[in-house]
Amino acid sequence: MTDTDVVTLLTDFDDFYVSAMKGVLSSRTDARTSLVDIYHSVPPQDVRAASFILSNVAAYFPDGTVHCVVVDPGVGTDRRAVVGESGGQYFVGPDNGVLLRAMRRLGEPTVYDYVYEDAKTESNTFHGRDVFAPAAADVAEGEFEFADENEIDGYVDLDWETARLEDGSTTAEVVYVDSFGNVVTNLDGDEMVEEVGYGSYIEVDGRRVAFERTYAGVGDGEPVCTVGSHGNFEISVNHGSGSDEFGLSSGDRVEMEIGV
Amino acid sequence: MTDTDVVTLLTDFDDFYVSAMKGVLSSRTDARTSLVDIYHSVPPQDVRAASFILSNVAAYFPDGTVHCVVVDPGVGTDRRAVVGESGGQYFVGPDNGVLLRAMRRLGEPTVYDYVYEDAKTESNTFHGRDVFAPAAADVAEGEFEFADENEIDGYVDLDWETARLEDGSTTAEVVYVDSFGNVVTNLDGDEMVEEVGYGSYIEVDGRRVAFERTYAGVGDGEPVCTVGSHGNFEISVNHGSGSDEFGLSSGDRVEMEIGV
Amino acid sequence: MTDTDVVTLLTDFDDFYVSAMKGVLSSRTDARTSLVDIYHSVPPQDVRAASFILSNVAAYFPDGTVHCVVVDPGVGTDRRAVVGESGGQYFVGPDNGVLLRAMRRLGEPTVYDYVYEDAKTESNTFHGRDVFAPAAADVAEGEFEFADENEIDGYVDLDWETARLEDGSTTAEVVYVDSFGNVVTNLDGDEMVEEVGYGSYIEVDGRRVAFERTYAGVGDGEPVCTVGSHGNFEISVNHGSGSDEFGLSSGDRVEMEIGV
Repeated sequence: MTDTDVVTLLTDFDDFYVSAMKGVLSSRTDARTSLVDIYHSVPPQDVRAASFILSNVAAYFPDGTVHCVVVDPGVGTDRRAVVGESGGQYFVGPDNGVLLRAMRRLGEPTVYDYVYEDAKTESNTFHGRDVFAPAAADVAEGEFEFADENEIDGYVDLDWETARLEDGSTTAEVVYVDSFGNVVTNLDGDEMVEEVGYGSYIEVDGRRVAFERTYAGVGDGEPVCTVGSHGNFEISVNHGSGSDEFGLSSGDRVEMEIGV
Repeated sequence: MTDTDVVTLLTDFDDFYVSAMKGVLSSRTDARTSLVDIYHSVPPQDVRAASFILSNVAAYFPDGTVHCVVVDPGVGTDRRAVVGESGGQYFVGPDNGVLLRAMRRLGEPTVYDYVYEDAKTESNTFHGRDVFAPAAADVAEGEFEFADENEIDGYVDLDWETARLEDGSTTAEVVYVDSFGNVVTNLDGDEMVEEVGYGSYIEVDGRRVAFERTYAGVGDGEPVCTVGSHGNFEISVNHGSGSDEFGLSSGDRVEMEIGV
Repeated sequence: MTDTDVVTLLTDFDDFYVSAMKGVLSSRTDARTSLVDIYHSVPPQDVRAASFILSNVAAYFPDGTVHCVVVDPGVGTDRRAVVGESGGQYFVGPDNGVLLRAMRRLGEPTVYDYVYEDAKTESNTFHGRDVFAPAAADVAEGEFEFADENEIDGYVDLDWETARLEDGSTTAEVVYVDSFGNVVTNLDGDEMVEEVGYGSYIEVDGRRVAFERTYAGVGDGEPVCTVGSHGNFEISVNHGSGSDEFGLSSGDRVEMEIGV
């Protein structure tokens, strides 16, 4: 029933292992199906980072796309594999919540159990290759049954609130650090522009930092707050690393105050 | 009118952002269109490096290929986006000259303005995703109008002369440093082979360096001059970095003397 | 005669050069042909590592796949280029044995000489682009003649025995170190599980190391032996590098004793 031209891959493998998944997908899907890499350098087992990445790019893919995500700290335990549907796209991955933010952005998520008894019994199982790639191929080929009796409610969820300013201050959360060291927070960029405005200053963990439209709004090596292309408020250093400068990683909290 | 099977991507993103461009391209082109990565680890904002890379590989792609290049220090300013045509291939990118060397190698460049008013008004614009990927899709699908009134002459150009030996010496320019630290210059390799010859020595910034057919012509860790597969004269270190050894980066000048 | 939907690429280039190969392949094959990257960060000239990688993933690709491998320390010498067939898949690469382990795993290898006189005479030859990509395209398009008179017996072979336990001890060989520093040996994982069993200890180069089902079976930073998804016995460090901890690289030998 699906009409899939694209299968994407998002993992933390950063090695040749992802090519085995592509082999499986090539073997089990129509030759017209394009395999598109989203990213394979997700920090190892960082489910939150993968969730942030997927939720930022999924909307740009065509209807019917199947996203296959393998960032899976629970591998080896009996955690479920799930297949999700939302807004005309499909999602395959471990039941650790990694798919939910992207699905919620596209519409109303429905989540199904993907049963993989056979793989479970193998002595050396690489779930990306032996469970998730076959699952994605099944969905792409219309061979997965989206049956009511497979639908599950008690899936693991993972999402985060958008932080809000209150009386000019807030405690934001780091949702992602990109490869340049830019610290992406759960503060909405548009709201910060409206309420604070470019050209003003913000106290970040006790330091006064300029809020600028571009990194180049400050000198080389100076800290700067800005709004990323994903729409989130970021803490950065012009030609440097905001993550190093402020000691911030995915999941950390950071105190901010405006009007300083 | 275009007959495009391949769209290439060349950026300095080195992060998941390129996958949003691939999503846009998948959504807006025929399912048969192949997306081919040229390179995404271009040194940040190094327009010259991207120009060198593109000019070295474009000729190997089929007629009708659309090359989408996003190395764009001018993002956020009102620099134009351009679409170029040369020798049966198409080029999309910022108007900073990055496309010109490749276009000139293929034939006679024609450059058109790509108007992107809508994207300009968005608060958080990621031009790779919101301007250049849609432009490349338009060209690939034959939806960009190559009209005379859109043709522009005053585009930004970027190219470099080939350095020439004069009385046995020359000042060359570094046009690229590859990921191994090999320093690629604007000296023509064939000319150096003809006029100097393998097995001779060349003074490079005051140091005597052997000119060999392969890196292995000198011992481990020793500097060596050679001719790269792109046909340019290179300064290298066998199993080491010519860039580190000689302190040379893209755009630097280097004095050379032969017959030493 | 071949029916190829997929051409894979496996190199040690780690730079934009691989895109020139993709240009050649796009120009010379049917537009439906998918180009799939296996890996491009093979340690420079590490033929054994490339052989290990290829032999682990080839079986997952569909019938008719052409694997194009360029890890080629002999480039510039007169080593042959070869085309191999085994188990319905095709292999193209230098005659240094890199293809043999994968071919043997799929079936009975047949190896043919690929003559490339034209390329040999060019002054600046990049064999990946000028010899191996055209060869892979020829095979994919059914234009390579698998004629008896081109078949060769005296090709270079490269493979390794599986190490065996004898009286509770063995000398294993390192066949691969992955990007996380996990040291993959030529000991069969299943045999070690059967004869030694998870939860026991193994003396590795004189150190007592736990043999666990997962890295997490030991504390952070502690050494651990396990079985990788490729089925081989591995020496690792939980959240660390087994290669650094034990000073082991591809090709090294390592003494092991069980029942300690």
